[in-house]
Amino acid sequence: MSMSDNNIYDVIIIGAGPAGLAAGLYAARDRYSTLLLEKNGLPGGQIMLTEHIENYPGYEKIGGFELVEHMKAQVLNFGAEIIANQAVMKLARRDDGIINIETNSGEKSYQARAVILTPGSDYRQLGLPGESALRQAGKVSYCATCDGAFYKDKEVLAIGGGNTAVEDTVYLATRFTAKTTLIHRRREFRAQQVLVEELYAKAVEHNIDVKLPYIPVEIVGNADNTEIDHVKIKNVETDEIEQLKVDGVFIFAGMVPNTKWLEGFVEIDGSGYLPAAPTTMKTATPGAFVAGDCRQSAAMQLATACSDGIVAAMGLKDYFRDPASWAGEK
Amino acid sequence: MSMSDNNIYDVIIIGAGPAGLAAGLYAARDRYSTLLLEKNGLPGGQIMLTEHIENYPGYEKIGGFELVEHMKAQVLNFGAEIIANQAVMKLARRDDGIINIETNSGEKSYQARAVILTPGSDYRQLGLPGESALRQAGKVSYCATCDGAFYKDKEVLAIGGGNTAVEDTVYLATRFTAKTTLIHRRREFRAQQVLVEELYAKAVEHNIDVKLPYIPVEIVGNADNTEIDHVKIKNVETDEIEQLKVDGVFIFAGMVPNTKWLEGFVEIDGSGYLPAAPTTMKTATPGAFVAGDCRQSAAMQLATACSDGIVAAMGLKDYFRDPASWAGEK
Repeated sequence: MSMSDNNIYDVIIIGAGPAGLAAGLYAARDRYSTLLLEKNGLPGGQIMLTEHIENYPGYEKIGGFELVEHMKAQVLNFGAEIIANQAVMKLARRDDGIINIETNSGEKSYQARAVILTPGSDYRQLGLPGESALRQAGKVSYCATCDGAFYKDKEVLAIGGGNTAVEDTVYLATRFTAKTTLIHRRREFRAQQVLVEELYAKAVEHNIDVKLPYIPVEIVGNADNTEIDHVKIKNVETDEIEQLKVDGVFIFAGMVPNTKWLEGFVEIDGSGYLPAAPTTMKTATPGAFVAGDCRQSAAMQLATACSDGIVAAMGLKDYFRDPASWAGEK
Repeated sequence: MSMSDNNIYDVIIIGAGPAGLAAGLYAARDRYSTLLLEKNGLPGGQIMLTEHIENYPGYEKIGGFELVEHMKAQVLNFGAEIIANQAVMKLARRDDGIINIETNSGEKSYQARAVILTPGSDYRQLGLPGESALRQAGKVSYCATCDGAFYKDKEVLAIGGGNTAVEDTVYLATRFTAKTTLIHRRREFRAQQVLVEELYAKAVEHNIDVKLPYIPVEIVGNADNTEIDHVKIKNVETDEIEQLKVDGVFIFAGMVPNTKWLEGFVEIDGSGYLPAAPTTMKTATPGAFVAGDCRQSAAMQLATACSDGIVAAMGLKDYFRDPASWAGEK
């Protein structure tokens, strides 16, 4: 568990969300000296904003905060360190293979024999009044697979014009909701025509109301902001404001992988995701693994992010035995 | 949740271990009519034989039986059915795309629009007296990554001559154990020379005792079979029996994927594993997904098996929208 020499960690995990914590668990349990660097004040990542989780295998129901507490305790039990408020600014691989990590905390830098990159992705928010507070209350969601099941026989507003917005509106309406309103700010969807046709074909039977061109203006909560009272939407041609009574809001505005700071260290694809071999989580940069929602083709679920982290940590053994054996694909 | 027509399920999951249960959770939560067929009398698979789990993210410590109870309750909550004692004998895809499933229960057959194959793999057992009882007690293990951490500063016997045996003996000795004895029935290891050299190079410093050619004869427990008292091993050249005092036994005799019954339905590789695209879990057979320890390149961990199941279930939506879009790789 001790650092080998000169304060060089065996592995530094950048990001302490579920992927990072799972990687930390396996690395520390294998008795590698393990440090997790978290940019926020607390570990947990996006899952901390999730009030009700019912699709993590093994917990019928748990809150994000509580689940993270368990994961954190588990990692610390095995001797990993977690340092919060450490935004990594720069990574560089030295000639001797050691990776140097500079954070925002002034002169402080860290060194590791390998890194596991788990910075996650954020849902793109619209910045509406009420959006953030009602997200905390579990009434504003950015992921239909994650939260659709909470709206069985309820009414929701979906917002967006791309493939995900159109496809997941159909998903919500056909599987869960009593009524689904979809708004988009233009008269035409950006989504593929085949998806738009499916949307309209299923609209009557599944009670989908498509309103174009509308933008959301405000999400108005009840007195203590635990429920949505109504949502204000505006017709952008007439400027007319309407109030919609809904139980939930789904915002489909895309995701933003937190990867800009990795430019020059690992490959980044056109959408900001990090390509990695899916059975090993190796990047093309020796000693740099990727796990979780920042990974190209990630399934973007809590349990799949954990799995990514575990697979990455299990690759340390081979890499440490023979760093020269590194290959991007395997 | 209702079956669409003629008792055709949306999805039948074959095997109700962690991969199958996780797939069932996601499929049922998406309101697909979902049936899990389990060949044993109870769901859970191999994890039911695991007394102590400390590497499943979110549970600091839990028994396999208890974890499976949670997973099972969660799947049933969302309306999936589980039928036990159903060994599947034959699968066939009809011309209309429906998959027909015959089990050992006489004339009974099941139909589904898609299947997720999660039959798992079994560790190859040696059939030694005491092996099974002391496995139940958590003192005989088949997986160093899973159970090595339980033997910090303890003494273990490792058995086997292949790559995994040699490599994981080094892993156990360098990371956890106070003393590790490795026995193999021949004078030469089957493992790669580079691994054998590493074994001998680290033997003195890490207290590894290599004994050749020896076979195990019996694992002898204490009075109530909760601990190992000693292991009897035999020198196959002299027939001399020795008694070793150890805290645990690791048997590295390989794995046997439970896939023979799938011949002709999906591709099976030379080792018995099922190839599937790692980001979608699709096989080359339309409508047939694979998840868990039976999958080629699987990481063979509880959390990674769950992730596999989730990824497979998330692929149902696309397949049901357009079965013709199926492709083995994506």
